[in-house]
Amino acid sequence: MTRRAYVHRIAAAAPDDVSGIENAISDGRIDPAGIVAIFGKTEGNGCVNDFARGFATQSLGLMLQRHMSAEAAHAVCLVMSGGTEGGMSPHWTVFERRDTVEGPNGVALAIGRTRTPVLPFGDLGRVAEVDMVAAGVRAAMADAGITDPADVHFVQIKCPLLTLRRIGEAEAKGETVSTRDTLKSMGLSRAASALGVAVALGEIARDQITDDKIATDWSLWSGRASCSSGIELLDHEIVVLGSSPAWAGPLVIDHAVMADGIDVEPVRAALRRLGFSADGQLSPAERGRLVALLSKAEASHDGKIRGHRHTMLDDSDISATRHARAFVCGALAGLVGHAEIYVSGGAEHQGPDGGGPVAVIATRAG
Amino acid sequence: MTRRAYVHRIAAAAPDDVSGIENAISDGRIDPAGIVAIFGKTEGNGCVNDFARGFATQSLGLMLQRHMSAEAAHAVCLVMSGGTEGGMSPHWTVFERRDTVEGPNGVALAIGRTRTPVLPFGDLGRVAEVDMVAAGVRAAMADAGITDPADVHFVQIKCPLLTLRRIGEAEAKGETVSTRDTLKSMGLSRAASALGVAVALGEIARDQITDDKIATDWSLWSGRASCSSGIELLDHEIVVLGSSPAWAGPLVIDHAVMADGIDVEPVRAALRRLGFSADGQLSPAERGRLVALLSKAEASHDGKIRGHRHTMLDDSDISATRHARAFVCGALAGLVGHAEIYVSGGAEHQGPDGGGPVAVIATRAG
Amino acid sequence: MTRRAYVHRIAAAAPDDVSGIENAISDGRIDPAGIVAIFGKTEGNGCVNDFARGFATQSLGLMLQRHMSAEAAHAVCLVMSGGTEGGMSPHWTVFERRDTVEGPNGVALAIGRTRTPVLPFGDLGRVAEVDMVAAGVRAAMADAGITDPADVHFVQIKCPLLTLRRIGEAEAKGETVSTRDTLKSMGLSRAASALGVAVALGEIARDQITDDKIATDWSLWSGRASCSSGIELLDHEIVVLGSSPAWAGPLVIDHAVMADGIDVEPVRAALRRLGFSADGQLSPAERGRLVALLSKAEASHDGKIRGHRHTMLDDSDISATRHARAFVCGALAGLVGHAEIYVSGGAEHQGPDGGGPVAVIATRAG
Amino acid sequence: MTRRAYVHRIAAAAPDDVSGIENAISDGRIDPAGIVAIFGKTEGNGCVNDFARGFATQSLGLMLQRHMSAEAAHAVCLVMSGGTEGGMSPHWTVFERRDTVEGPNGVALAIGRTRTPVLPFGDLGRVAEVDMVAAGVRAAMADAGITDPADVHFVQIKCPLLTLRRIGEAEAKGETVSTRDTLKSMGLSRAASALGVAVALGEIARDQITDDKIATDWSLWSGRASCSSGIELLDHEIVVLGSSPAWAGPLVIDHAVMADGIDVEPVRAALRRLGFSADGQLSPAERGRLVALLSKAEASHDGKIRGHRHTMLDDSDISATRHARAFVCGALAGLVGHAEIYVSGGAEHQGPDGGGPVAVIATRAG
Repeated sequence: MTRRAYVHRIAAAAPDDVSGIENAISDGRIDPAGIVAIFGKTEGNGCVNDFARGFATQSLGLMLQRHMSAEAAHAVCLVMSGGTEGGMSPHWTVFERRDTVEGPNGVALAIGRTRTPVLPFGDLGRVAEVDMVAAGVRAAMADAGITDPADVHFVQIKCPLLTLRRIGEAEAKGETVSTRDTLKSMGLSRAASALGVAVALGEIARDQITDDKIATDWSLWSGRASCSSGIELLDHEIVVLGSSPAWAGPLVIDHAVMADGIDVEPVRAALRRLGFSADGQLSPAERGRLVALLSKAEASHDGKIRGHRHTMLDDSDISATRHARAFVCGALAGLVGHAEIYVSGGAEHQGPDGGGPVAVIATRAG
Repeated sequence: MTRRAYVHRIAAAAPDDVSGIENAISDGRIDPAGIVAIFGKTEGNGCVNDFARGFATQSLGLMLQRHMSAEAAHAVCLVMSGGTEGGMSPHWTVFERRDTVEGPNGVALAIGRTRTPVLPFGDLGRVAEVDMVAAGVRAAMADAGITDPADVHFVQIKCPLLTLRRIGEAEAKGETVSTRDTLKSMGLSRAASALGVAVALGEIARDQITDDKIATDWSLWSGRASCSSGIELLDHEIVVLGSSPAWAGPLVIDHAVMADGIDVEPVRAALRRLGFSADGQLSPAERGRLVALLSKAEASHDGKIRGHRHTMLDDSDISATRHARAFVCGALAGLVGHAEIYVSGGAEHQGPDGGGPVAVIATRAG
Repeated sequence: MTRRAYVHRIAAAAPDDVSGIENAISDGRIDPAGIVAIFGKTEGNGCVNDFARGFATQSLGLMLQRHMSAEAAHAVCLVMSGGTEGGMSPHWTVFERRDTVEGPNGVALAIGRTRTPVLPFGDLGRVAEVDMVAAGVRAAMADAGITDPADVHFVQIKCPLLTLRRIGEAEAKGETVSTRDTLKSMGLSRAASALGVAVALGEIARDQITDDKIATDWSLWSGRASCSSGIELLDHEIVVLGSSPAWAGPLVIDHAVMADGIDVEPVRAALRRLGFSADGQLSPAERGRLVALLSKAEASHDGKIRGHRHTMLDDSDISATRHARAFVCGALAGLVGHAEIYVSGGAEHQGPDGGGPVAVIATRAG
Repeated sequence: MTRRAYVHRIAAAAPDDVSGIENAISDGRIDPAGIVAIFGKTEGNGCVNDFARGFATQSLGLMLQRHMSAEAAHAVCLVMSGGTEGGMSPHWTVFERRDTVEGPNGVALAIGRTRTPVLPFGDLGRVAEVDMVAAGVRAAMADAGITDPADVHFVQIKCPLLTLRRIGEAEAKGETVSTRDTLKSMGLSRAASALGVAVALGEIARDQITDDKIATDWSLWSGRASCSSGIELLDHEIVVLGSSPAWAGPLVIDHAVMADGIDVEPVRAALRRLGFSADGQLSPAERGRLVALLSKAEASHDGKIRGHRHTMLDDSDISATRHARAFVCGALAGLVGHAEIYVSGGAEHQGPDGGGPVAVIATRAG
């Protein structure tokens, strides 16, 4: 008996529009019993007061409970990434796995997942969070049946953030918090989580990481971590995507690391490794084989892209994360030919400063 | 005696940072006597309360008057386009022309300019404005020594708008105005100006245009017009960029029309016509030959890009024009390899709905 | 048998934080069977893409269904007003009514409610919506047992808006819509709804209203209408608050009309009619008697407040409704001494241009 | 020979609209030779990328140079405070002083000013900035002829901020900066400047202040400091407003400290000390005597106003300073009856946390 991964990309008309997923369930395209995770690109601001993510999470939870027990629904990793700036199109990516009698035919997409314990607010953005996440990634790899970190191509993590109320709770207990700036707490949590991935995948040695390097030493990064923070959870949800000979089916995965926000050539190379010609923009025919494109975006901290000044960090009207998502989505959409792609903001330690990891999931070339 | 065009792309550290231009003048790289126009990408919001444009205009005017008479300074076309969203880099593009003894060697970039007569306020946004602009474009073509409309690749127009006082003056004369909404008058003026370009270039037959189609019938468009409206003028400033065998020097120009915000392949084709290989992203070597990229961006009015929903028109926090500039800049920067490009918002009748014209100015291949 | 109104003002820590209401139910302070309406001030942007309102509505619905049938829960009017700008504090106002054996002692607060049929998208912002709302207000008055329109002090209406998708649906049926600008549709729907209130209360004769006066002729207004538009409903929810000798209990209500955004003296006069001294700011002691303050806010269309220019209508970064809510909340909070007040944006035909109706609900003076 | 202070409050139609001041000069109402300072409320976002302030400063400078030498024009303190949120009206307040033969009649408004040396970027937000400002305040008091700190009612300071470029310059010299977050640098600079005022006025002992208390220990504050940071200067401009028996004329000044954003009663008390009845809102008659109202606004760091949660610090779409200005302006305008008042954001150590100092300048009661 082998396992087979399914990935369904489904448009969403609003944060609570789960009708596309329900239709796929009623049509038999999705077997709800196998749903491991749902990634959502939702249309809020992607920052502290983005309630679209919570709305989506609640709506997905209600939908899942119509098809499974509350306990099983709760076990599904719901990773909502807020912000569909520029032409980015709101959508769900549903990850499903089923047992199958198909024999493996080379390597195929493998999916693992886990949830960590609840993170004490005082640990957020600190080494304790790095360790908690590293342990979680290892658990998710085991869940996927992947033993070699080299076979992991993408690790999606949803991590918590601080609010004024949570800071107050921590301080009432005599704890200190890593920051009292709620927006900054999102970055710190993503940063610590990304370093946790890097440790688990052997990209960075654990002893290189200290509290003061988190969200400051950008020379430390994972090429496969993607972290989003959200107000709606207190623990971490972790999904590992990789390649395994123990899995069957037509889906394959590879990844690339963009060195900056317009560095699309490594993504083109990954597409080619998966059998796309990718000369210029993907043709409509090739576009049909592209199942999902998952990436990160952020404004480089030196305020430049290839030597030219950008203004993202100096704009007090629009958050830098919103600028970066719109811009990087444009660069990637120019490559693949559509904008229903998952670009998540805030790439602290996720790829080099200003760049980020990208995963490509595709149907095997015919 | 032939003429030679110079185009200087110069970074700006702020809307009032004209030091790069002054340095080029003092170095002798720019001869101020030949400055025809300066296009600025300035870092405001590009919308109604964007004072960065006025600040830039005032600063450029003061700078020019240090090098020429007030009258000569006033004759320079200053076209400020607000909004450097995403990674777009604030910069000036200075257009200069000089007489030269060089012989022509094929076609080269030609620059023409003119100002129209003062537009009666009652004509704004109506066919009379279309006709005035069409005549102006023909005059600017003549100024450039271009006779065949096919040799025109880009027409930048700065057009007037209505204010409450101007509406009052028109109505006191018994005229009606096309709108009493001053903000709307900006779009109407850009729309009529773009159609004027289309008529002058033979893209649309004059008899197809009636008052009621202006700013409503998006099937009518120019593939080479770029228009912005400003409160500081009562006439139109027109700059024509084209190709001419009567001009000398290494600069060449071509254009493309994007069908939507990610339609970069026509731009790639234009680059190839100018001798770039443009396989994938421009290489650093090729990038050095790219002098200027001028384009328009807008959110498609049907709320979709290639069938996928975008959220630009439903976002009450960020203006759709800001989303569109960030996104289209990403797509174009992914192609050319840097983001010091000129992406201007508000593209009424300037390219098809959701797309827009793009001009490429380059140094001739070696 | 008489009826008695209860009004509970309860803080909300987030759009989905209904714990305060649940605690009141479990404590016996609220009898869920009597809940007629819940007004929420929720912390989104209050504009088109404000999903916090929908999230709150979904969360309240789930909460109500834990205490009553789905049908009964659906009958509760949930009026979410987005936007807690400035110091405004997110909170719920729960309106409850119970039968009682208490005898009336003068007039007391009376509450009525209804829902209209679903509004065809093509009727939005037109006379057909005015008529639908007027009929609804009469039904809600009947529900409250109020026959004289002079006894009505506040009518809260939640009305629908247009989205691109809804416009598309209407146009696919061959209907026209009153606007294709989604943000503008919110104003048109509020405008038509307010005129519906004015007609029902005899403030404006029905034959004075034509499509072209809706959201243009600001001389037409109701002094008691408060309308919010939201993406989460397709009909209208109507709640009438008034005075009746047939109701018992300690709650009383009065209203005022602010002539502009800082016209607090009529509110002070209403407070005095209800027995407050209201010399300067309400003292902490008097503040305890103030149960709810409900008001509207908007930017005056002439761009002035008492002759001085405001910039709310020219700001392309922050919606005028957000500016106005922050500002008017400041003015009212300066009067009553706290900011847990309900200031709802977009006051088209709700009070004079730039001003708006205010309702005060208080416990009878001891 | 005594001195007499003049204060002219003049509307501005745009950041570069200096016509009102020029008209007053040509009418003889203002003698340009005596202009000491001009405070501007300009309509940008008041944050890092607010170029309206620089545009106003440049425009005022050009205007002044039409009436005096460049050196004299440069000596005028130009304090531009960005952000006219809510109903706040953009305007200039021109402070002028003249020698007079009038004898003093009690105390009158006295004005002093100075500029500090250029602040090294590495000193920003640190004790070195506190000391530089304290010395500056003492110099400005001497310039006003005020010796007793108790006679000082308001100290307006314009202080520098960090940009990415400035941080780079500092770091290139081997200096560290107090923050690499440009928006945060504005707050640090205001904080250190306010503590400098407090030291100069004897409100806080110098030895109580250490680097780590700046912008963290909100128990330290001045009741008379008002600080704005701006991108357009590298030193500090300081204006002291106070009372002196050595000055003549009808203008008088007093101040109040608001304990929170709606604490208008201390301002009412200050108005009464200056002879206003101030029962309820100022009457139109009394309003004519109110020459200028200068205040600060900020969001309280505990996220509450009188126990109720506010959302200003959690809003990633609108800066907390913009929320606070709109709200506090509403509270003050509700008291004085118009909104052409000067509310400046970011009140770190300027009044208690969430509150701030307010100065009232009025014509002596008849």
